[in-house]
Amino acid sequence: MTGRILVSALPSKLGEKVVVAGWLHRLRDLKNFGFAILRDRTGLVQVVLTPAQLEQLKGLQLETVLKVEGTVVEKKSKDPNAKEVEIQAETLEILSPVVDVLPVEISKPDMDVNLDTLLDNRVVTLRNLKQRAIFRVQAALVRGFRAYMHRQGFTEIFFPVLAGAASEGGAEFFNVEYYGRQATLAQSAQLYKQVTMGVYEGVYGLSYSFRAEKFGTSRHLTEFNQLEFELGFVESQDELMDHEEAVLREMLATVERECAEDLALLGATLPPVGERFPRVTLKQALELYKQGTGIDETNEPDLSPAAERWLSTEWGPKEHGSGFVFVTDWPAKKRPFYAKPDPENPENTLTFDLIGFGSEITSGGMRINRYDEQVQRLRDKGLDPADFEDYLMMHKYGIPPEGGWAIGLQRLTQNILSLPNIKEATIFPRDVQRLRP
Amino acid sequence: MTGRILVSALPSKLGEKVVVAGWLHRLRDLKNFGFAILRDRTGLVQVVLTPAQLEQLKGLQLETVLKVEGTVVEKKSKDPNAKEVEIQAETLEILSPVVDVLPVEISKPDMDVNLDTLLDNRVVTLRNLKQRAIFRVQAALVRGFRAYMHRQGFTEIFFPVLAGAASEGGAEFFNVEYYGRQATLAQSAQLYKQVTMGVYEGVYGLSYSFRAEKFGTSRHLTEFNQLEFELGFVESQDELMDHEEAVLREMLATVERECAEDLALLGATLPPVGERFPRVTLKQALELYKQGTGIDETNEPDLSPAAERWLSTEWGPKEHGSGFVFVTDWPAKKRPFYAKPDPENPENTLTFDLIGFGSEITSGGMRINRYDEQVQRLRDKGLDPADFEDYLMMHKYGIPPEGGWAIGLQRLTQNILSLPNIKEATIFPRDVQRLRP
Repeated sequence: MTGRILVSALPSKLGEKVVVAGWLHRLRDLKNFGFAILRDRTGLVQVVLTPAQLEQLKGLQLETVLKVEGTVVEKKSKDPNAKEVEIQAETLEILSPVVDVLPVEISKPDMDVNLDTLLDNRVVTLRNLKQRAIFRVQAALVRGFRAYMHRQGFTEIFFPVLAGAASEGGAEFFNVEYYGRQATLAQSAQLYKQVTMGVYEGVYGLSYSFRAEKFGTSRHLTEFNQLEFELGFVESQDELMDHEEAVLREMLATVERECAEDLALLGATLPPVGERFPRVTLKQALELYKQGTGIDETNEPDLSPAAERWLSTEWGPKEHGSGFVFVTDWPAKKRPFYAKPDPENPENTLTFDLIGFGSEITSGGMRINRYDEQVQRLRDKGLDPADFEDYLMMHKYGIPPEGGWAIGLQRLTQNILSLPNIKEATIFPRDVQRLRP
Repeated sequence: MTGRILVSALPSKLGEKVVVAGWLHRLRDLKNFGFAILRDRTGLVQVVLTPAQLEQLKGLQLETVLKVEGTVVEKKSKDPNAKEVEIQAETLEILSPVVDVLPVEISKPDMDVNLDTLLDNRVVTLRNLKQRAIFRVQAALVRGFRAYMHRQGFTEIFFPVLAGAASEGGAEFFNVEYYGRQATLAQSAQLYKQVTMGVYEGVYGLSYSFRAEKFGTSRHLTEFNQLEFELGFVESQDELMDHEEAVLREMLATVERECAEDLALLGATLPPVGERFPRVTLKQALELYKQGTGIDETNEPDLSPAAERWLSTEWGPKEHGSGFVFVTDWPAKKRPFYAKPDPENPENTLTFDLIGFGSEITSGGMRINRYDEQVQRLRDKGLDPADFEDYLMMHKYGIPPEGGWAIGLQRLTQNILSLPNIKEATIFPRDVQRLRP
């Protein structure tokens, strides 16, 4: 828009005549004059209106889109250090009139509505300042992820969504009618990232995963994104964790640098990252949990949600200054068929989870890279190698020792911003009930 | 891998002992010694093998994964200026043995197989040097796109794939079984990019689009990606074309800068971009085509494929030094319900296509942003506004004058690299027959 100045640039235009445009965020009609708060993508500014201009807005509601020409003046404030500006409007133009009252008061900092109302009205509730800040932070996380990966010389992959009918039992797959036969939606990018690792060695990308949880509840997302990573010529899982730790540091640094205002608005404090994320085995983690809380889960093959919380919000921050804790060495029966067994103890696998500020945000580890070993493992798991033709083709024709991990994007966003529900960290969430907007 | 040196770094290690690792790309056994060509993600290097090392490779096939320790020496060459290096192997370790003969000779520069064989064996054919170069170029295009958009202060959106049952007639949608009801796969990101434009003003992202072409042929992709853009507070479609032209220049510059070797390998020359992409109306384009070729299609409401080819590969390069040509002002009946009518001629719309080096790669334009106008337009098109509740919600609660466009990623890659089939520009293509790998 010719000559339009963004709100964030107004302080440098003091005394000048400017054009601003945006949404009518709030309005105060004081008869002899009025105040409109105009919102654009960079912020809010107060516009002082004459009675004639107030008259122009008669019958119109908040969110009406306006173009204002006026002079930037210092805003009268009780605090002489405030140094805010406002606009003395000269002309007002209605770009898009709104005549209906908003279903939700989006100009309130906290909209004070339940999750369903928030999401049913996503088209407008996303305009709320806090809501829009969430997805700027999310985009910055992804930007930091890609910047790190590109600098390593790795290759970005655009993973497919449609796949052939499921072979792994078929549980939790969504079925698609596909020219008279059945297709499914990708549950993970595992096949594609291993195949492309076998070409580019280091690969990364944002995948779409779909899970038709059998007893779907509205607590689960049926569609979510993962930040995928796979690396060849790796000798130990420490190398994989090194990359994950480094990329997370860069992702958080990107948010800190580029989204300071968004974080302040959300009242969010980034998790502490310490000198190094601690790395403990599952056995050690359960032992620490017992010592720290008296709760004995040392016979369990897994971490309970309470143990994950304690490790990453109490033990990690206190002992290592880190809200992230790697937990390694998971039992084979808890891991997928491609997890590499520990050569010194085949019950165990060279795999890890990253517990991040409350809950698991990553699963990763070394993969089986030898053909005969992978075929045997599938059989041991009761799976038919014939159902894994494409997958095994890459093993048959040579892939190096390798591994990788995936970070759930919405989960990470939720944890970093301390949002109560993962759907608040999802721009257009889908669950068993929700497919819109 | 500890101490591993990438092939591209070897010339700087002349005379040093190094560790390299990669795939056995080719092998020549000359009894008393041999040559292995080792491939890693950065290139090829010749490794000189002793008879004992040749013995180690006995019974193994190409693509066996190797680790070699040896000394970097100058390669004997007839050309004294060649300055190539090779490795005198000291030890050889088999990281992953391959015992089966490859289904396709991937070490040949051109594999000389038909498209189905190429794609059926994607897991290995992607390792071919030219094949892997294609998707590095594609990733660089996307990187250039995002870098430009981020610098403008626009926000990246991660668009959803699953959506509620289709309302627009339902043609060409894929249906998904969704907890006892029906969902569909997104055909376009139109709703989401307009909604988020209403929040962030400038939005962009990589979307997934799914089209179940009624008479699907193997020439069509059923799944593809689009580079999406939408911008608010826009007064004319020229502003939208300005952004598209600028971003395409940056995308091509990124490829030129970061993928010089890939382009050379593919024998690809980037299309000329001239000083400015010419902008002609559809009427003018058809007139130019008639004058230039004698073929009169001036009564058509569209450009024929031949006309698109002529405009962008003959007229554009010759008259404007540009392989890209914008064609504007399309008849309303050829454009979707959200296309903004030309206020001076409602039969016409403020929309454009970008013809890029052979065929259409973009559709874009100004959108209707007023609620009453959009409701009326839906009715005029025979559509029921009640089926567009979420879409109309954004108009009802105020969106600025705006517009946008989308670039088909695979189509653009195909055109830029002059690939004969769009599926060669798609890493894991899906068509009516193909859902794997």
